[in-house]
Amino acid sequence: MASASLNRSLEYISKNKDRFLQDFRTLLKQPSVSAQKIGIEDCARIVKKQMEMAGVKTKILPVKNGNPVVYGEAKSKSSSKTLLIYGHYDVQPPEPLEKWVSGPFDAKMQGRKIVSRGAADSKNNVTSFIKATESFLKATGDVPLNLKFIVEGEEEIGSPHLPGFVEENAERLKADSVVCYDGDFDETGRAKISLGVKGLLYVELRCKKAREDLHSSYAPLAENPAWRLVWAMSTIKGPDDKILVKGWYDDVERFSPAQSRLLEKVPFRGQNLLKEWGLKSFLKAKSNREALRRYMTEPTCTICGFKAGYIGEGSRDHRRR
Amino acid sequence: MASASLNRSLEYISKNKDRFLQDFRTLLKQPSVSAQKIGIEDCARIVKKQMEMAGVKTKILPVKNGNPVVYGEAKSKSSSKTLLIYGHYDVQPPEPLEKWVSGPFDAKMQGRKIVSRGAADSKNNVTSFIKATESFLKATGDVPLNLKFIVEGEEEIGSPHLPGFVEENAERLKADSVVCYDGDFDETGRAKISLGVKGLLYVELRCKKAREDLHSSYAPLAENPAWRLVWAMSTIKGPDDKILVKGWYDDVERFSPAQSRLLEKVPFRGQNLLKEWGLKSFLKAKSNREALRRYMTEPTCTICGFKAGYIGEGSRDHRRR
Repeated sequence: MASASLNRSLEYISKNKDRFLQDFRTLLKQPSVSAQKIGIEDCARIVKKQMEMAGVKTKILPVKNGNPVVYGEAKSKSSSKTLLIYGHYDVQPPEPLEKWVSGPFDAKMQGRKIVSRGAADSKNNVTSFIKATESFLKATGDVPLNLKFIVEGEEEIGSPHLPGFVEENAERLKADSVVCYDGDFDETGRAKISLGVKGLLYVELRCKKAREDLHSSYAPLAENPAWRLVWAMSTIKGPDDKILVKGWYDDVERFSPAQSRLLEKVPFRGQNLLKEWGLKSFLKAKSNREALRRYMTEPTCTICGFKAGYIGEGSRDHRRR
Repeated sequence: MASASLNRSLEYISKNKDRFLQDFRTLLKQPSVSAQKIGIEDCARIVKKQMEMAGVKTKILPVKNGNPVVYGEAKSKSSSKTLLIYGHYDVQPPEPLEKWVSGPFDAKMQGRKIVSRGAADSKNNVTSFIKATESFLKATGDVPLNLKFIVEGEEEIGSPHLPGFVEENAERLKADSVVCYDGDFDETGRAKISLGVKGLLYVELRCKKAREDLHSSYAPLAENPAWRLVWAMSTIKGPDDKILVKGWYDDVERFSPAQSRLLEKVPFRGQNLLKEWGLKSFLKAKSNREALRRYMTEPTCTICGFKAGYIGEGSRDHRRR
């Protein structure tokens, strides 16, 4: 793109900074918790409105049994190439609420930061690509590439309906390249573009035995689902951190020499991460470099949550179903 | 005791049935939730009044930092033996309130039953020993044994001040035998007197690693406390239900032949229990009789609660400290 266009766009951004920030906070104030089915439709409408205000041709595409996708297009006069930009408007559940310094959907300013669920992932990214598009369109009358946008509402629950949506809308989504606008900064403070991210398989084990809570004294008579779950989990990963599921490591591709050389070049300040996490050393890694290698190359398996029995204050010697 | 005295007492009970029931409901209507510190002092005063009305010499003994104990004595003219009777006037919290068919402290009649928190444990027992004592004293002018009563107000929170109270009042509480008036009916509908009940050791394991929630992708870098707990728990009991803690079974006394013979005589309708619990069979027992033997003779170890990570609705790929 011509640097003149870019400069005019940057100027537009400077002039409209306050309004952009206001729009960002409007989006943040709208709860959109996919796991709890809260505020989804309203949030999709806010995204649509902000995209339209930016000059993007927008429609909300319903998704069968799922949360709607906000779709948009901005045609370029100067390029025949098309970039598809992916983002999501849903957020993680805000619990535990008592740990927030202000309401998770209050979007309060704390100095130069905004404290809000979704401020970092990924209403910030959604806002920045909408505002970048607006800045190009309004300041130069054009965008440097044909742009297509999908902003989905199920990323935080694993995008269960996205594959079906993509298949159904294959023609509409055709593009020369795709960007997932979900970036972050690494522990050295450097903005990241990730190539080749890990997939995620989320599995929930449930075990139910007796129909009612039983007193702990009945332990010899009735199976306790909590034990079943503990034993099941302990067959999945052992204390040496090796995953015990048969065939787990079979299809892991080893890094090529070229990839290993690239890995050596990744700046990685492990100490910064450890400090942030309040830990003294990385798990099963003798050096930062080894930790990075494990992080980049090893498949993992972990417990995201575990619940059984009474977990409130004090003791209660009833096992629960 | 002479059956003539017993008959006269039973006659007295028949005549005073309605008043006894009224007094029972007065006691039930007084909230006395030790866990929530509600109504304790007032309840102790009602117990004292009802014991005095029964002809028992009564005083409320304060307990340092704790709930008061109602103490009473009834001297016998015909026996030198002393029986100490234990009961408690506190109740469990009534929550969840929406599950009650009527207010937990309304003590409403439902046909021949009274629905109330504490109706079964143990204001019923407190009432029955007070009214039994009154019936003997008023109908025969005597009680068949010297009686001492303690009615405490902290049973539902684990009686934290009772050991200290007993030590301080050792002389006052001296007795030839003690009865804990906390009985129940077995699954055949028979009233139970329990001899030799199991003790309870409640242990809480906590594990904390990173100071903040970490994304599941960091699993190769940081230890997950949920795994530590799972592995720890799986060293405590194995899938064969044998407890693996070293020395766990060392001090278990085997039943004597005489005890085993008594065990054979205990009526046990295991099918009733299984039906109530919604289970098809007892754990690791080929017969009801074997289940009863395990229940009566084997020490146990079980999980009353387990909590780690996100346990709300939907998925969340963050491990939690």
